[in-house]
Amino acid sequence: MPIDVEVCIIGAGAAGLKAAHTLLTKSDSLTQNDIIVVEAQDRVGGRLYTDRTSSKIGLHYDLGASWFHDCLSNVVFQHFYSGEGEGDKEIFDILSDGYFDDKPVKVFSSDEIAEIDMHKTNMETITNDIESFCELYFIDKLSTDEDITLKQLVELYIQKYSKILTEQEKKYAKVTMRYYELWHGVSWDRLSARYAVLDHNGRDLFNKKGYDFLINWLLQIGISRDRVLLNSPVSKIYRDASKLVGNRRHRKCAVEIRGSSELIYCDYLVVTVPQSILSLDHKVEPNYGIEWVPVLPASMQTALKNIHFGALGKVIFEFDSVWWNKNQDRFFILADENVATDGIETLTSLPKPFSFPALAINSSNIHKSDKGSLIILTQTPLTEYLESNPDQAWSYYGPMLARISSTPYSPPPAPINTITTKWTTNPYIRGSYVACYKGDDPTEIISQLSGEIDGMGLSSSTIRFAGEHTSFEGEGCVHGAWMSGMREAEWILKHSGRGEVTKKLDKWRL
Amino acid sequence: MPIDVEVCIIGAGAAGLKAAHTLLTKSDSLTQNDIIVVEAQDRVGGRLYTDRTSSKIGLHYDLGASWFHDCLSNVVFQHFYSGEGEGDKEIFDILSDGYFDDKPVKVFSSDEIAEIDMHKTNMETITNDIESFCELYFIDKLSTDEDITLKQLVELYIQKYSKILTEQEKKYAKVTMRYYELWHGVSWDRLSARYAVLDHNGRDLFNKKGYDFLINWLLQIGISRDRVLLNSPVSKIYRDASKLVGNRRHRKCAVEIRGSSELIYCDYLVVTVPQSILSLDHKVEPNYGIEWVPVLPASMQTALKNIHFGALGKVIFEFDSVWWNKNQDRFFILADENVATDGIETLTSLPKPFSFPALAINSSNIHKSDKGSLIILTQTPLTEYLESNPDQAWSYYGPMLARISSTPYSPPPAPINTITTKWTTNPYIRGSYVACYKGDDPTEIISQLSGEIDGMGLSSSTIRFAGEHTSFEGEGCVHGAWMSGMREAEWILKHSGRGEVTKKLDKWRL
Repeated sequence: MPIDVEVCIIGAGAAGLKAAHTLLTKSDSLTQNDIIVVEAQDRVGGRLYTDRTSSKIGLHYDLGASWFHDCLSNVVFQHFYSGEGEGDKEIFDILSDGYFDDKPVKVFSSDEIAEIDMHKTNMETITNDIESFCELYFIDKLSTDEDITLKQLVELYIQKYSKILTEQEKKYAKVTMRYYELWHGVSWDRLSARYAVLDHNGRDLFNKKGYDFLINWLLQIGISRDRVLLNSPVSKIYRDASKLVGNRRHRKCAVEIRGSSELIYCDYLVVTVPQSILSLDHKVEPNYGIEWVPVLPASMQTALKNIHFGALGKVIFEFDSVWWNKNQDRFFILADENVATDGIETLTSLPKPFSFPALAINSSNIHKSDKGSLIILTQTPLTEYLESNPDQAWSYYGPMLARISSTPYSPPPAPINTITTKWTTNPYIRGSYVACYKGDDPTEIISQLSGEIDGMGLSSSTIRFAGEHTSFEGEGCVHGAWMSGMREAEWILKHSGRGEVTKKLDKWRL
Repeated sequence: MPIDVEVCIIGAGAAGLKAAHTLLTKSDSLTQNDIIVVEAQDRVGGRLYTDRTSSKIGLHYDLGASWFHDCLSNVVFQHFYSGEGEGDKEIFDILSDGYFDDKPVKVFSSDEIAEIDMHKTNMETITNDIESFCELYFIDKLSTDEDITLKQLVELYIQKYSKILTEQEKKYAKVTMRYYELWHGVSWDRLSARYAVLDHNGRDLFNKKGYDFLINWLLQIGISRDRVLLNSPVSKIYRDASKLVGNRRHRKCAVEIRGSSELIYCDYLVVTVPQSILSLDHKVEPNYGIEWVPVLPASMQTALKNIHFGALGKVIFEFDSVWWNKNQDRFFILADENVATDGIETLTSLPKPFSFPALAINSSNIHKSDKGSLIILTQTPLTEYLESNPDQAWSYYGPMLARISSTPYSPPPAPINTITTKWTTNPYIRGSYVACYKGDDPTEIISQLSGEIDGMGLSSSTIRFAGEHTSFEGEGCVHGAWMSGMREAEWILKHSGRGEVTKKLDKWRL
């Protein structure tokens, strides 16, 4: 029998589940039966995924999002920080469940045994200068869409200011800006310089508890589990269901689940699939792409073409003991200059160590544990290679991590366990979050999908979009996804007259 | 006999002399005799003043501007950096005549013997967080003119995030933001939080050579010294000279020099007096205020009331030897919390040491000299007090500077020489440069005076304004004054048809 509901939500991640929760709690009349959530995977959570089984030393790891970013303006953080909600402290206690892992990062490189002296190398000053240079470079080009890669920008800076930079400053200037690779999940030789440098709204809180708390909480206070259909990837969306046979209640649109002969009819549809899935051409990827009937407007298709999907991955090494500085938060290990991987789109063999910089999070310090655990962030194209060849991860990172050893002359012990993410090999995810390659435009896609700009996207359609890629605030972040789900639920309540949304959507509000 | 010229320029500082230089070099027909510069003081240079006589250890000091700020967008820096001008290297060689004194600052306080460990205290992270908090605080108030002091903002931050800040973080958060006092020359209990946090365009280069080089160079390539009338303060400006007897050539306006019976008639007038002088009511200050006939428009008067003049001063101590870390660029000595001076407008006695923070520039390191010299920056209201009571400077700073001693347990030797600036006691200057107290508006005055916004200020009048307080770019800086002088000269050339200014005024151009 076909499913017939008021609202269908595609995707059971933070955006989709928050949309469902908002619909249920802000409406006077909507009930569980009026809403259905369809999820392609065999689990809820999307890119929130806490691995509680792989560790051999009793820890757990968020393989997806791990931080509350931009805490000063992060609605989720602010909710739990304010402590006003009933029982919030049991759900997430900022003090005991979070940790600001932002003590100054320690920097290492292939050609120095000890930590690099930030004072002597003036590394921070030069990095700030390159960031200002970047800003000024593009201020002059505001009316154009000219772009260069982050790598090219750094080269320009060094070339222009060669006369006043010391040899040491030049040496480090050449590689320190690659730090941004680990924000975007993209190697600097393809990253857009125009959009690489980020402006933060406050500190980043590491989520020690595991982000599954948020998904579990949403399922507890929002949509019930039996209204979430797992293993239900969408193959087709009918934007206009008026002529479909079987649409007995004259619902506005319909959704086809892959392999199912029955449609889901609904009046409102919230599409929270990742941007990587939205961008798929269903003719090229018939098993994973979504067919739109009729096709999406050309302007939306163009916007989807002018953006990329990053591939921030993680490699987690577990050891018998902590052989690095116990009290340090993060280690940044610089790449060498002029590595052979620059410009290579796909790695066909393991690159030499120090080809890509590594950011290692000291999980042992975060958990104040004697058990050795380092979480390494990875960037495209290394992520794809390591996620497909996890057994080679230590060959790449071992020699780099040797630098952070408290006894730098003896090689570090081999890990007793290696855990790698699988985001790029997961056909329903295909990476991490929205990212700008050279020439991309990050605002166009949000303008098209957020529903906040008149006349853009599907405009007055009852098909709405949510997810981290649709939010001007918190783009790429959990709280961005969260707010976008809330935004679309509130739009639906207002449009349908099913709930009074009197308060303006404000950023501190859950 | 009355003076009769095409252009009269009031003020022989960077703005006025650059205006004269531009007029002479960009025009085909203007000659020295067409221009006169009148200067209130007995010397040229204005707030550029290199003291080459007071030192007892053979150094020289810029008592006014000392740095090329924002080097990435500083036209003066860029000119000498590019090295394209003939003989520029003799005039100012960036490498040997400049020094980037921006190695990480060392921080000290009254209650710790040794330098404060930036790593352990997390001071930088918290300072950055307060800056972001400040930005967000005012983003919410963009459409209002609500303001608080920098001190109040810091208190708000600490109050709001009290739960997650460690005691140590709170302690330092309470005082580190006072660093901005030494940018603006104003104590944090009056400084506008809205405008206190600065966005820099690159590094700051200390001018080792002395900024008199720039004034000398302008006099060499521009207006000749006999066309600069020293000791000639202006008492009255006639905006319309058409009815004045003696205006034989029907010049558009006229200027009265204090004590002189003859007027200076001119078609174009460039007023570069400091904002502090423009703001004076000539009825209240008959000996120093300028009377406008007719009075300035109410909008200009309001704008002048909604801005303050900072009082960044300097106290320079010379010693027989260097008893601090030779290789350090700058020392920042924190004020104590809750000092009695907060909220006090005028100091009537020397405050206790550690009432105001101190930034000490290690002049010995800048000049790579074994002779001991520290340049301390001072802020209002301390500047006024010390400039009036220079003999008390060591009583205030001695105990604070003891902290930076390489042997912190033995008191430092007394200075063999103390030099203090006299900007606040100089009736033609009265401080340092434009500054925002709580509630001030920095853009209004520039909009009124820059001549760049249609219908504002004197609009199409041939009376123009230049100086650091009239420039959207480089406000408060030498290059801002410089560009404003160039801007007005180019306007005059275009308006008078006396010179073809074909190239758009661009920021890299001299």
